Amino acid sequence: MKLELNQIQDLNKQKAAEQAEHFGFLKLALDKKGIDAEAIVQKLADFQVAIPSWALGSGGTRFGRFSTGGQPVNLEQKIEDIGLLHALTQTAGAVSLHIPWDIPTDPAATKQLADSHGIVFDAVNSNTFQDQEGQVETYKYGSLADRQTAVREQAVAHNTEVIRYGKLLGSKSLTVWLADGASFPGQNNFRKSLQNTQRSLQEIYAELPADWRMFIEYKPYEPSFYSTVIQDWGTSLMLAEGCGEKAFCLVDLGHHLPNTNIEQIVATLMMKGKLGGFHFNDSKYGDDDLTVGSIKPYQLFLIFNELVYGMNHNEANNPPLAWMIDASHNIKDPLEDLIQSLEAIQLAYAQALLVDTPALEAAQADNDVVLGQELLQDAYRTDVRPLIREARLRRNGALNPITTYRSLQVRDHLIKERGLKTVATGL
Amino acid sequence: MKLELNQIQDLNKQKAAEQAEHFGFLKLALDKKGIDAEAIVQKLADFQVAIPSWALGSGGTRFGRFSTGGQPVNLEQKIEDIGLLHALTQTAGAVSLHIPWDIPTDPAATKQLADSHGIVFDAVNSNTFQDQEGQVETYKYGSLADRQTAVREQAVAHNTEVIRYGKLLGSKSLTVWLADGASFPGQNNFRKSLQNTQRSLQEIYAELPADWRMFIEYKPYEPSFYSTVIQDWGTSLMLAEGCGEKAFCLVDLGHHLPNTNIEQIVATLMMKGKLGGFHFNDSKYGDDDLTVGSIKPYQLFLIFNELVYGMNHNEANNPPLAWMIDASHNIKDPLEDLIQSLEAIQLAYAQALLVDTPALEAAQADNDVVLGQELLQDAYRTDVRPLIREARLRRNGALNPITTYRSLQVRDHLIKERGLKTVATGL
Amino acid sequence: MKLELNQIQDLNKQKAAEQAEHFGFLKLALDKKGIDAEAIVQKLADFQVAIPSWALGSGGTRFGRFSTGGQPVNLEQKIEDIGLLHALTQTAGAVSLHIPWDIPTDPAATKQLADSHGIVFDAVNSNTFQDQEGQVETYKYGSLADRQTAVREQAVAHNTEVIRYGKLLGSKSLTVWLADGASFPGQNNFRKSLQNTQRSLQEIYAELPADWRMFIEYKPYEPSFYSTVIQDWGTSLMLAEGCGEKAFCLVDLGHHLPNTNIEQIVATLMMKGKLGGFHFNDSKYGDDDLTVGSIKPYQLFLIFNELVYGMNHNEANNPPLAWMIDASHNIKDPLEDLIQSLEAIQLAYAQALLVDTPALEAAQADNDVVLGQELLQDAYRTDVRPLIREARLRRNGALNPITTYRSLQVRDHLIKERGLKTVATGL
Amino acid sequence: MKLELNQIQDLNKQKAAEQAEHFGFLKLALDKKGIDAEAIVQKLADFQVAIPSWALGSGGTRFGRFSTGGQPVNLEQKIEDIGLLHALTQTAGAVSLHIPWDIPTDPAATKQLADSHGIVFDAVNSNTFQDQEGQVETYKYGSLADRQTAVREQAVAHNTEVIRYGKLLGSKSLTVWLADGASFPGQNNFRKSLQNTQRSLQEIYAELPADWRMFIEYKPYEPSFYSTVIQDWGTSLMLAEGCGEKAFCLVDLGHHLPNTNIEQIVATLMMKGKLGGFHFNDSKYGDDDLTVGSIKPYQLFLIFNELVYGMNHNEANNPPLAWMIDASHNIKDPLEDLIQSLEAIQLAYAQALLVDTPALEAAQADNDVVLGQELLQDAYRTDVRPLIREARLRRNGALNPITTYRSLQVRDHLIKERGLKTVATGL
Repeated sequence: MKLELNQIQDLNKQKAAEQAEHFGFLKLALDKKGIDAEAIVQKLADFQVAIPSWALGSGGTRFGRFSTGGQPVNLEQKIEDIGLLHALTQTAGAVSLHIPWDIPTDPAATKQLADSHGIVFDAVNSNTFQDQEGQVETYKYGSLADRQTAVREQAVAHNTEVIRYGKLLGSKSLTVWLADGASFPGQNNFRKSLQNTQRSLQEIYAELPADWRMFIEYKPYEPSFYSTVIQDWGTSLMLAEGCGEKAFCLVDLGHHLPNTNIEQIVATLMMKGKLGGFHFNDSKYGDDDLTVGSIKPYQLFLIFNELVYGMNHNEANNPPLAWMIDASHNIKDPLEDLIQSLEAIQLAYAQALLVDTPALEAAQADNDVVLGQELLQDAYRTDVRPLIREARLRRNGALNPITTYRSLQVRDHLIKERGLKTVATGL
Repeated sequence: MKLELNQIQDLNKQKAAEQAEHFGFLKLALDKKGIDAEAIVQKLADFQVAIPSWALGSGGTRFGRFSTGGQPVNLEQKIEDIGLLHALTQTAGAVSLHIPWDIPTDPAATKQLADSHGIVFDAVNSNTFQDQEGQVETYKYGSLADRQTAVREQAVAHNTEVIRYGKLLGSKSLTVWLADGASFPGQNNFRKSLQNTQRSLQEIYAELPADWRMFIEYKPYEPSFYSTVIQDWGTSLMLAEGCGEKAFCLVDLGHHLPNTNIEQIVATLMMKGKLGGFHFNDSKYGDDDLTVGSIKPYQLFLIFNELVYGMNHNEANNPPLAWMIDASHNIKDPLEDLIQSLEAIQLAYAQALLVDTPALEAAQADNDVVLGQELLQDAYRTDVRPLIREARLRRNGALNPITTYRSLQVRDHLIKERGLKTVATGL
Repeated sequence: MKLELNQIQDLNKQKAAEQAEHFGFLKLALDKKGIDAEAIVQKLADFQVAIPSWALGSGGTRFGRFSTGGQPVNLEQKIEDIGLLHALTQTAGAVSLHIPWDIPTDPAATKQLADSHGIVFDAVNSNTFQDQEGQVETYKYGSLADRQTAVREQAVAHNTEVIRYGKLLGSKSLTVWLADGASFPGQNNFRKSLQNTQRSLQEIYAELPADWRMFIEYKPYEPSFYSTVIQDWGTSLMLAEGCGEKAFCLVDLGHHLPNTNIEQIVATLMMKGKLGGFHFNDSKYGDDDLTVGSIKPYQLFLIFNELVYGMNHNEANNPPLAWMIDASHNIKDPLEDLIQSLEAIQLAYAQALLVDTPALEAAQADNDVVLGQELLQDAYRTDVRPLIREARLRRNGALNPITTYRSLQVRDHLIKERGLKTVATGL
Repeated sequence: MKLELNQIQDLNKQKAAEQAEHFGFLKLALDKKGIDAEAIVQKLADFQVAIPSWALGSGGTRFGRFSTGGQPVNLEQKIEDIGLLHALTQTAGAVSLHIPWDIPTDPAATKQLADSHGIVFDAVNSNTFQDQEGQVETYKYGSLADRQTAVREQAVAHNTEVIRYGKLLGSKSLTVWLADGASFPGQNNFRKSLQNTQRSLQEIYAELPADWRMFIEYKPYEPSFYSTVIQDWGTSLMLAEGCGEKAFCLVDLGHHLPNTNIEQIVATLMMKGKLGGFHFNDSKYGDDDLTVGSIKPYQLFLIFNELVYGMNHNEANNPPLAWMIDASHNIKDPLEDLIQSLEAIQLAYAQALLVDTPALEAAQADNDVVLGQELLQDAYRTDVRPLIREARLRRNGALNPITTYRSLQVRDHLIKERGLKTVATGL
């Protein structure tokens, strides 16, 4: 299924006058505060987030999974789904591929299909946390960190293969997420595991094309429940520095211990020039992988505030960040869920763009804690929805993607095309 | 496979002298402190813990599962596995059945088989967190708490059926664990969900035979990631009181927010006469379902200290508690894992039995905080392994169950009998 | 110092036109959605929050305290400070007194002074967590829960005395917060501590005038670091039910374990008709006592959503809630900090009033999780500042309280009047 | 007060036979397992832990403080107290000085006094989290991280002065703990704060004598409640590396977010050769500063397991670690509390020394998770009290320090000498 431009525009018309009015009012109000609404709209329009190929179907927990109809069953259908998202939101112009769940059998055709939807290939992702049919060594006890050379070699070779696929599709980066760790004291030697990981990453790094980057993800627990080899940003940074200048840290919002100040981590990594990628989701308890902005939207804003500051003060040469949504869709329609996530990301970004940085720096110079808070809250409390709607409108997206999606009965069409009981590869 | 008594006893002989020496030494030392080692050994020998029928195979996470060879593929094999555990440890004399994963097709035969291993049927467990093949209503959005009458009725009817199976096997209690909750704000109306749950539980309660008990489990999160209807002991108690005197709370060690003082909850529930069951496991982060005592053995001791105190001061008429291990075996041989859990439970129980309660009460009366701590630590720091070995020995169990299990190559035999790639029903 | 009406109104004039424009625009937009802005403004105008007498000076931590100039040194000056807050915000029309920090020496005069500022006396607070000069028994090891009768009697007598003071001033409720607990395993007997607490509370309850209410606060830890007798809402409810129909639970936002779903607790207590009072603050780690809404404003909104729902569906007869700010001002000017808190409370209340409850209930009936979230987010994302400004304006408060406070150089005046190095009683 | 050797030995005699018997039995049992009990006793006897000069009086919380009689009121009395601890435990042979709470007025005399008790001067500690009488700049908004040059210079100068005092007394290291951070979003610029901290630390480092080391402590929160500049080990390591080879990280057990795997951090830092110091305490919720081993003794053992491994595999040249107890004594007699902490440290060290490292490494090589756990638990479950008693005995310490302390009525003597209502400087 592919949405036609006029289908979206017809629906937009019904709300066009209201949008014009709200945007106009907000633009004027911002103008009085010396903020250029048009410039913000342009930045919002330019902002694109990758959709992972594994997150277009229903997710589940260890307690089971409830299915959604019309799930994509192959890579082509997944790209088609992202195409739908992109047509509606104009923010989902990239896909992040997972190998081996989504190996392209005809890379050229796959690339062409993505092109036709305006979708580029962002970071490719390896998987050494599951055993695949026919695999020689098991990852049950580890992969890049494993004590057995043969296991590590297999895991390195897999990453090399992932790079190969990525090259065929035009990707420029590899994301490594490791489940390696231990569920019990005594299971592993912390130091040896870390040293093995460093060596394995260096071997992968050596295979990286000159214009590629490697992103090293961290996570404190799950699926290992006592320790994880790359447990926090400090370990990730140590490993990235041990690889070289093309290696960076990747922050996933759900991969932190309770109460972690994530925005401070973002600031520190950008100060070091070592932030490479970002995985969006939200959570209340652990790595819950909920819709972005559904639980802690103010934290998301504070993180974007650091990201915007970092991009505007990039003396340390962080690369253009690889943005991706990494959420699980256990009870919602995956496409609706992703639309809500994209909306929340754009809102937080817009709010962060409203922050009066010079005034904030002046307040900080004066130790004016009250004013510093007021300035952030002023940006956050502004209703920025007219801005992100305007950005979508100008790119021919939907004014209101969720209602458009529903009006056009997209899910019903997908069920008709694909069937009710399809299962997507992925988690 | 069934272990013969002489197989175990032959191996015991090798360590019998050492055990006699250590037990003798400890007995003397305890005697000097006015503690009757023989009485403790008797209590340890009498203490039995149920094994859940769903935890004899490999467990997994949402990221996948790594298999173990020789897993039991039906209820008979599961009982056989528990028989092995019981022969070795003499502590696993009960099974807790899960419906519909382990529906007995011939209850009389199943009961007879269990009898032959010295195994009784403890609480039966219902499952309304997954959809089964052919089920009319879905539990995707709830079961006993669901807003739709048809869903609730189906869930109540399932519980009634579980009771029916339990009666055939000699069970005397039903454990209800609900996954019902919400993953997003706005998904549910908290009050209606709770009221529906209360009503549904009352309907199940009405079906309870006169000599049965109902256990209501609580859990703060997972698989719901924003709220869970029965989120804590306070909610569980409210619901149990709303049902009647045969309804009790069930505590699962992993079902608490970070840093919860679980022993205090145990004490409070026993003071109210409303503690009915207990699920053992251990965890560092969430509901990790690790081997009992592998992470926080002192907490386990403190909990047992309250349990022992509560059993000795049972003015409120708590029933004999339903003890069960509820752990997941992601990387260990499930049987070895359960042996380690049983060992840890026995150790904590033995330590708690050593506590000098009169001295502790005197220290508390004197506000002697230092001495109160010393008394608990004195019990905890004692090496009580000779006591639990002695208890096993006197019941013809193995002095050292793990080494015996390995010496007798039990897993190899099971693999030979059942095959390498079997899959057990369960989580 | 007392602010004159014209001082505030002169400053309001500068922003009056802008406010009229923004309010008008929002009113129209709400009108199109079927929401009566005027009714909301009236509710906001009626909403009053008590200021605790102990939170008008600088707060501190165990690591020390940094002073603010012009702190109030007696009860009269504290009421004067609240008068300033109320003149500016029109939301602080009540004081919550703490005994013995703020014993009124001439209650009639104190009452008259408060009257002159439009301030009433809300709940009175007892203190049995510190020893006072000349006190016979120490609270080092407990107060209402203590094992010694003399200590408990002293603590009960103190609470009775607090009621007596409250009666003289027109209060109608008593708030009991207990620090009682243990910092080490073995220090206390959980059950005896709880039973003593129940008995002591019953004795206090017996002294309660017929038209009074008692609020029982809970908290998991601090200043006790192993266990607290009233550790959670379940314990608080148990105790309140053990006292009688005039006893209620009090929720303090900072008194929960990490990740607790507080809004669900609020809903449950209101369902039971047992929510009596509410203490506002915010926190990231523990009981941080930060400015309301400064860390988790969406959680605050979700809580208000339950409060509004509960007040609109009050079949269980919860009393009118006693609202209070319970924050500590470690680095901000206490009055500015309180203004920010009052603002955040009003914002969350206004957002909650915008929720389209019928549509939400319909979405829930349809299992439309996406729409349920959208509806809450729609209310939350609305910029409701014009509404709360309008409510203040109509009550002759300041359009922008913080800038007005600063323009009128209130703190400078207070320093001139009271001196730079004054110290307020309290924490 | 000073304890005479014969006072202690007279009391030891009563339990000497029992100790001989228990030690003999354990020695034999260990011998059978190939473990040399004598070598372990020697290591335990050599192990010395510093007592901080600020932790000999009653501690408190922001809610107040309850006093203990006979607290030391000056540095001499503090050293005297440590002398008592050392005489009893033979493990407290060092003091860690805090400036400006304990400025030595006559350093030579102070040194001589310490010598007479067998006490050396370990790391000196600076304090830039409180304002002192007569101080020019305030630390209210920061110290080494502050945005104002004058504040930073004052803080650096203070640290330089602390080094000067340390040199006079024979210290060889400086511990820097910073409270710098923010309690509200917007208060600070994360990057600038961190850069200022790095620069200030470098300036202090430049003043470090050639044979000194600098320890950089980290902590996630308190007294700042939104962010702390040196929030975790990663930040501490970054700063230490930015200073030079004499700069190291310092781990305080209470300074971590909930559920942090501290032993893994210890292993990583030792792998990097950057672990310099260690602060012992225990906690259940936050930085509770409870008695060592009173809440999570198994975690303490696992940490010691890494420390012992790291000291035995010190390819990265970590310095001899600076051990210190950093606990607060809110309800216990401070000296009894410290004796309990010293005991818990020795127990964990002894257990870690029992670990069969070759067998553990073999189990890990075999992916034998069950055996790895068994080996650690075997060491932990051993009752090692006879070993640490033997170590004390051989150094003429008390067999049972707590009972000896009580039998000799040390606290009563101190109260007689110093009075009942003394107050020690410190927290």
